[in-house]
Amino acid sequence: MAIMSTPTTFRPVLERIAEEIERTPGSGRPADYIPALAARDPRRFGMAVAELDGTVYGVGDWREPFSAQSLTKVFTLALDLAREGDALWEHVGREPSGNPFNSLVQLEYENGIPRNPFINAGALVVTDRLHTRTGDAAGELLAFLRAESGNPDLGHDEEVAASEAAHGDRNAALAHFMASYGNIDNPVPVLLDQYFRQCSVAASCADLALATGFLARHGIRADGTRLLSRSRAKQINAVMLTCGTYDAAGDFAHRVGLPGKSGVGGGIIAVVPGHCTLCVWGPGLDERGNSVAGVAALDRFTTLTGLSVF
Amino acid sequence: MAIMSTPTTFRPVLERIAEEIERTPGSGRPADYIPALAARDPRRFGMAVAELDGTVYGVGDWREPFSAQSLTKVFTLALDLAREGDALWEHVGREPSGNPFNSLVQLEYENGIPRNPFINAGALVVTDRLHTRTGDAAGELLAFLRAESGNPDLGHDEEVAASEAAHGDRNAALAHFMASYGNIDNPVPVLLDQYFRQCSVAASCADLALATGFLARHGIRADGTRLLSRSRAKQINAVMLTCGTYDAAGDFAHRVGLPGKSGVGGGIIAVVPGHCTLCVWGPGLDERGNSVAGVAALDRFTTLTGLSVF
Amino acid sequence: MAIMSTPTTFRPVLERIAEEIERTPGSGRPADYIPALAARDPRRFGMAVAELDGTVYGVGDWREPFSAQSLTKVFTLALDLAREGDALWEHVGREPSGNPFNSLVQLEYENGIPRNPFINAGALVVTDRLHTRTGDAAGELLAFLRAESGNPDLGHDEEVAASEAAHGDRNAALAHFMASYGNIDNPVPVLLDQYFRQCSVAASCADLALATGFLARHGIRADGTRLLSRSRAKQINAVMLTCGTYDAAGDFAHRVGLPGKSGVGGGIIAVVPGHCTLCVWGPGLDERGNSVAGVAALDRFTTLTGLSVF
Amino acid sequence: MAIMSTPTTFRPVLERIAEEIERTPGSGRPADYIPALAARDPRRFGMAVAELDGTVYGVGDWREPFSAQSLTKVFTLALDLAREGDALWEHVGREPSGNPFNSLVQLEYENGIPRNPFINAGALVVTDRLHTRTGDAAGELLAFLRAESGNPDLGHDEEVAASEAAHGDRNAALAHFMASYGNIDNPVPVLLDQYFRQCSVAASCADLALATGFLARHGIRADGTRLLSRSRAKQINAVMLTCGTYDAAGDFAHRVGLPGKSGVGGGIIAVVPGHCTLCVWGPGLDERGNSVAGVAALDRFTTLTGLSVF
Repeated sequence: MAIMSTPTTFRPVLERIAEEIERTPGSGRPADYIPALAARDPRRFGMAVAELDGTVYGVGDWREPFSAQSLTKVFTLALDLAREGDALWEHVGREPSGNPFNSLVQLEYENGIPRNPFINAGALVVTDRLHTRTGDAAGELLAFLRAESGNPDLGHDEEVAASEAAHGDRNAALAHFMASYGNIDNPVPVLLDQYFRQCSVAASCADLALATGFLARHGIRADGTRLLSRSRAKQINAVMLTCGTYDAAGDFAHRVGLPGKSGVGGGIIAVVPGHCTLCVWGPGLDERGNSVAGVAALDRFTTLTGLSVF
Repeated sequence: MAIMSTPTTFRPVLERIAEEIERTPGSGRPADYIPALAARDPRRFGMAVAELDGTVYGVGDWREPFSAQSLTKVFTLALDLAREGDALWEHVGREPSGNPFNSLVQLEYENGIPRNPFINAGALVVTDRLHTRTGDAAGELLAFLRAESGNPDLGHDEEVAASEAAHGDRNAALAHFMASYGNIDNPVPVLLDQYFRQCSVAASCADLALATGFLARHGIRADGTRLLSRSRAKQINAVMLTCGTYDAAGDFAHRVGLPGKSGVGGGIIAVVPGHCTLCVWGPGLDERGNSVAGVAALDRFTTLTGLSVF
Repeated sequence: MAIMSTPTTFRPVLERIAEEIERTPGSGRPADYIPALAARDPRRFGMAVAELDGTVYGVGDWREPFSAQSLTKVFTLALDLAREGDALWEHVGREPSGNPFNSLVQLEYENGIPRNPFINAGALVVTDRLHTRTGDAAGELLAFLRAESGNPDLGHDEEVAASEAAHGDRNAALAHFMASYGNIDNPVPVLLDQYFRQCSVAASCADLALATGFLARHGIRADGTRLLSRSRAKQINAVMLTCGTYDAAGDFAHRVGLPGKSGVGGGIIAVVPGHCTLCVWGPGLDERGNSVAGVAALDRFTTLTGLSVF
Repeated sequence: MAIMSTPTTFRPVLERIAEEIERTPGSGRPADYIPALAARDPRRFGMAVAELDGTVYGVGDWREPFSAQSLTKVFTLALDLAREGDALWEHVGREPSGNPFNSLVQLEYENGIPRNPFINAGALVVTDRLHTRTGDAAGELLAFLRAESGNPDLGHDEEVAASEAAHGDRNAALAHFMASYGNIDNPVPVLLDQYFRQCSVAASCADLALATGFLARHGIRADGTRLLSRSRAKQINAVMLTCGTYDAAGDFAHRVGLPGKSGVGGGIIAVVPGHCTLCVWGPGLDERGNSVAGVAALDRFTTLTGLSVF
């Protein structure tokens, strides 16, 4: 990691990136498995940086809420790890999947233990376990995001939640399949309701960059209390780097060089440990489900700043 | 990455680790696919640290040569990238394999393009391409390792090379299979000869820690000349982090948090970008082919020093 | 097929087989995924032959009802084909699966179209389609079995049906997964209810040998009316031969040489086209889910009589 | 099987089929992996029937030699089984592969034991074993084909043999891969030479229909001597039915209802046990590697004559 000799803001860098992204003809397509996502204009773009002290700034649509989708998997993972610790790892692995993000194949070869907490199967397990421990996994997530972002209006997009439920057969299949191996505690309909609500969180780049701050602060929340030990916070960063961008994790590490997590709503969050966190949003996705503009913006960011974990 | 406020040496840390490893009853088994490796005493242990300026020190058997095996894949990758640049990535991917290290399955689904340069199939492609560009891939590798380590006696273990060739059916299968997709340039017997010589390099922890130095110096060789651009050196670190330890890359990132590459000879090299490089050796392997003592020692090292890229 | 020059009965052959089976120490284990099946004594054995004219006779427990399970897949296939004809084959294939009987892997690679109607996924599709066409797939099946066997008491085992439902996560996963590809018409809970009732049919060797008669009579039912064309009846025999015994179809064809279908209740039905039908029952299963005594008995039957389609 | 009340010839049926095939616009493409096959005119068509007594007749190009390719796998299987008996089945399975014909995937999951003797991997094992037992597998095959067909001019197409060798990387990969599991006895280059010569046999529909006669005569050769027991001849028919047409075995059984074996040269041989054998040739292949005209002709044959094993 390149060490910046003085504290700095990245405003000029963000502005330059926003200009470049605007000039580049849009590419990628919004996720089309639910109508609420498909309707998004692929040319929208926002990017925010949150510094360790909670300062946040951005460019473009950085204050507009979008569908967080899989970005929330990072937070439920942290919330569950904070409660049950390493016992979680008996129920979900932490290896890259090497396969598209909702594959059933590996799950079958590996007896119902998902490869990692960021594929859908793994996130279902984490939500199931968090729900068992809290009685309200989705509520716990929402409270955490509101607290960290300082945005009490952050909430669910009910249209997206309903749409997820209406197109939920594949996640239902995953949940039942893992239940057949004894790796799901709650009734499948209860779990799916929790899971779809979690996916339907709507938040802005500003909100999500702030909410990710605990990973740059080695486990410390916005209010100065500790959510996770330093070691466990680093471990989440490691899982993000190796598993955070579906089956493009190697390419993302190669191009961007930061722990990151993407969602099919077009958002990506990224961590510069000890420095800052980023959230970028662009609805057009590449064929592996990652935001085209988002990856490009983060690639430019690390190139221009010299920041990277490598 | 935790920043050490003053330059320091890690001697006391290495000594503590060596004591701990010695106290722990040995586990793991030496690789048994060739007799030359199977004969190794699994209780052997060595560990070396090389600082950016070429200072190197260690504990245990840190000056004893062992079979480098797959550790050499890092160097042939660097040597080929230095020559052909990104064109290489049309012939080999950079995603974690998600499968055991010599799997043919993914190769078949992906039309003869190996997942990454560190699985055997990918290393065969890299060696093939380096051989086409140099006329002597194994010689090029040897010259590089001698120059970086400052050890002119560093060479091949002829017994291991002969043993590899005698048990080479699986690598021959991989090479012919990729050749059937047009992804191999040289005749398969020529390629295999080059590859087995590369695998049979014998070097010590000291040699290999020093030879890895260019990755901590962002592309600069021991003599101050540049092998790779800063950006490309970081990319190799990224590939090591996501793909360097077979199908345990996620676990290694989680426990150790450093770019690393393991070999079935029991060696592991690791990089603390901007700080130092490490090489550890212990012949007993876990079921995924990584040195049990080696992973444990690196885990302790990052825990005790706070160093990690996350 | 060896041609028997005169009509004959197979009584002496059956008696000899029953003696041999009794002498052989029992092997195989009852299916254990639901308690109702696991409790069965693996030494039970029955075998019946039904001639074309409806004459039926047997040995051992040939009149005792057992859980028909997957044997019913043959009848729902015939009932649906009789209604919709070849359109069915756009929704389910007719190739051997090459994988264990409830694998999700192939289903994923092949976009939700199950390999054949005799793996669970395929049977779910057939039941779904029959239910759409009749409004009561399970009732239709029961009516058919009662009519063909002449046994009005033939019915469901309610304990088995409840047990199937309580352990139905894997079938629920299959159904939701296919629904995600648009290959299921009815709501998944409705389909599963129909499917589990179908699996829970309890019938004897006598009942099932008689009910299979239409396949030996080239499509003609017990009452002389035609259920299927000659060509379509032959096609069902072909699907039984290539796909009827899970991933042991090749071995079954090799040893027995007759179209057959097995169930995890320990039953196997087999067809000698133009001659007779057989049903054999022994609860102990081999590792591929086929009755050990059942396969052995049919192997002996074809060896002793010279009957086989080859 | 429909029983023909009197002996008969199928001349009129063949003529009708030839007319129909001619009227149908050609479809399918010749195999293109070697130039010698790709050059074949896809509109060529021949079909021959051989009766049990050695009478043979045909239509179209039924006397023109074509590349037998995988059709020879049936004969090497018979020749090896005649020598070593059931011991062969410890080295090759007899289950449908469920995957394209030269897949490495299953081979890897099943430790180097090919699924059946008719996929390339399985045929390599059979040739290897026959070669060990005879010292000249290809010569043994040629002698058998000449004797059964009564055609002393039947031989190899040297251009095809050379072309196979020049494009042999995939078969070399298969052979080396199985050798790595200890399932190949001879040196790989020796085996490949034998195998490519076997594939390059050139023979006519008349030759091949006659050479297949022993399978319709339950193991008896043309000269009245016994090659295989009745039981073993039936078993080969069973393996042909379940595994003879790559991953279209289920479809072939469904449409044609006879044991058959196809080759990428466009030939298909089929057996009506106790009646006759057929060979049909049309170079245009469907996407699964079977002759389009060949399958259509056999489909018509069984429909028009009512012959089928079901």
